[in-house]
Amino acid sequence: MKLLVVIDQGLHIANKNLLPSVERWLTTVEIESCKSLLVVGGEEAKNDNQVVDHVLEAINTNKLCRKSCVLVIGGGAVLDAVGYATSIAHRGVRIIRMPTTTLSACDSGVGVKNAINHFGKKNFIGVFDPPYAVINDLSLLCTLDDRHWRSGLSEAIKVALVKDEQFFAYIESNAELLIARDADKMGHVVTTSAILHLRHITEGGDPFERLDARPLDFGHWAAHKLEQLTNYELTHGEAVAIGLAIDLRCSVILRHLEDSIASRAIALLQEVGFSTTHPAMEDPSLLDGIEEFREHLGGKLTLLMLKGIGDPIDVHALSDEIVRQAINELV
Amino acid sequence: MKLLVVIDQGLHIANKNLLPSVERWLTTVEIESCKSLLVVGGEEAKNDNQVVDHVLEAINTNKLCRKSCVLVIGGGAVLDAVGYATSIAHRGVRIIRMPTTTLSACDSGVGVKNAINHFGKKNFIGVFDPPYAVINDLSLLCTLDDRHWRSGLSEAIKVALVKDEQFFAYIESNAELLIARDADKMGHVVTTSAILHLRHITEGGDPFERLDARPLDFGHWAAHKLEQLTNYELTHGEAVAIGLAIDLRCSVILRHLEDSIASRAIALLQEVGFSTTHPAMEDPSLLDGIEEFREHLGGKLTLLMLKGIGDPIDVHALSDEIVRQAINELV
Repeated sequence: MKLLVVIDQGLHIANKNLLPSVERWLTTVEIESCKSLLVVGGEEAKNDNQVVDHVLEAINTNKLCRKSCVLVIGGGAVLDAVGYATSIAHRGVRIIRMPTTTLSACDSGVGVKNAINHFGKKNFIGVFDPPYAVINDLSLLCTLDDRHWRSGLSEAIKVALVKDEQFFAYIESNAELLIARDADKMGHVVTTSAILHLRHITEGGDPFERLDARPLDFGHWAAHKLEQLTNYELTHGEAVAIGLAIDLRCSVILRHLEDSIASRAIALLQEVGFSTTHPAMEDPSLLDGIEEFREHLGGKLTLLMLKGIGDPIDVHALSDEIVRQAINELV
Repeated sequence: MKLLVVIDQGLHIANKNLLPSVERWLTTVEIESCKSLLVVGGEEAKNDNQVVDHVLEAINTNKLCRKSCVLVIGGGAVLDAVGYATSIAHRGVRIIRMPTTTLSACDSGVGVKNAINHFGKKNFIGVFDPPYAVINDLSLLCTLDDRHWRSGLSEAIKVALVKDEQFFAYIESNAELLIARDADKMGHVVTTSAILHLRHITEGGDPFERLDARPLDFGHWAAHKLEQLTNYELTHGEAVAIGLAIDLRCSVILRHLEDSIASRAIALLQEVGFSTTHPAMEDPSLLDGIEEFREHLGGKLTLLMLKGIGDPIDVHALSDEIVRQAINELV
């Protein structure tokens, strides 16, 4: 079997031992490895074809076939772009994802999305394709700076809000330890979040998003637009925290959710270190995010709101006035 | 529902009534149609990103979503390139394929491949994705010139050789009528071939080609390479006819097939108008086609040879000497 290692170059610079230790391990097993490839990390990996082209070239040069494997080590954007390249080469070369951020370990690492941005639109180009395997190695997370250590917690809080009140309570009662970088607690949060995401994909009845509902995309219409409006200065995790706060307030204004529950959830986001406001929230084009979200997913607009923790409800309209009021309540 | 019509511009020039009649029909149904798109036809559609980029732009400009539809009218190369674009836009916009050549009507129209060429390699980039619907309108075939009228017959003969002796006998006994452009006979051949291909994909147990065997690719290792070596002057159908002749001869040399059956099959290819020789057969790099075929499909080399009509056998090696002898017997 042939294996090509692709690694986020930012990670490689921050952790010079990682690549040599992977390459050393490869010499001990019956795998024919190729020269490893370093690629640019962060949203830049998805904003043009550069990373996709480099991976395609390496697949061609190293004569990888459909039964060969790419091992990608990096954050969510790198996993998305490299996964897209492996999905389209020979109509699918195997990929093993090794997420290196709490965000990708909590959420997209186990997902079926592979995508890059195009026409200034997030994930415009991509395919649904499950990875061959995912390795969530929690020891990789310990080298993250505080900002990226925390970044996955908004997706964990999201999936807890939508699916699992007990998990929400766990994050709440361990908030202090989580920001104090308690690895065991973070390990439990990452694992539980990944399992809840995976269970939704495999058991939710719509793995490739053919239906209208998007239960995992709570808060995401605003999050995607905020990332774009801030030129990706906000991380996806930070944007999701703000998007959740907006849709929690909208859920209250729409009279689905008690004010006290929204306040409790927003307080938790803040307690683990997220800001729930940003100047870009007041950009009028934020509201275009609703139609762009609908257009990308297709069909009737379907947004998830909350009636309670673990108790979601689909809505099919969200007026500009309600969103503006929600934002006014937050800023 | 929104619908975008994409049409092969060569076809549009040859049949100026087609597009207006489709557009007229669209005004009579509850479909929001967009400005139709003309794209370059033939292998040029797959040799760079031009067609894919145009379709992506039109999907973006017309704000098509996953529940919108693209209706593509064209030959196999156009179906492949446009299908690739719709498969990657928003991770899958619906596509209705309307094949306009006997070749695509017989074979790829009902297939799950969507691909373009890259690094000089046929179908290097692509995805497996079934179309939303396929319309085989036989009246479209009647405007084809003789060369393209005949072109699908090699794929029909291929699938008959591999799957269905009775169908082979049908083509044999109607060869004269087929080249005399008998529409009923061609209709039966196209329909039977499409059904045999479709049945293999849906019932063969390996729709997305994860296993080694490639029962529909009889004769195709040489065909793909001959297309490339002749800079696509040979149509796919013409190259398949030569590829079949080579692998029929190889089947005899390998002592799997009786000489008389190979001769009967090669005679039928010639009778319906195909040449079973071409100067490019003697290019030494033709033999690279075997390894390129293996590399694209992955895993162990697996080539299909024949023991009899409808009675295939997998082989896992094919020496240069045998191929050279097969070619010498043909030229």
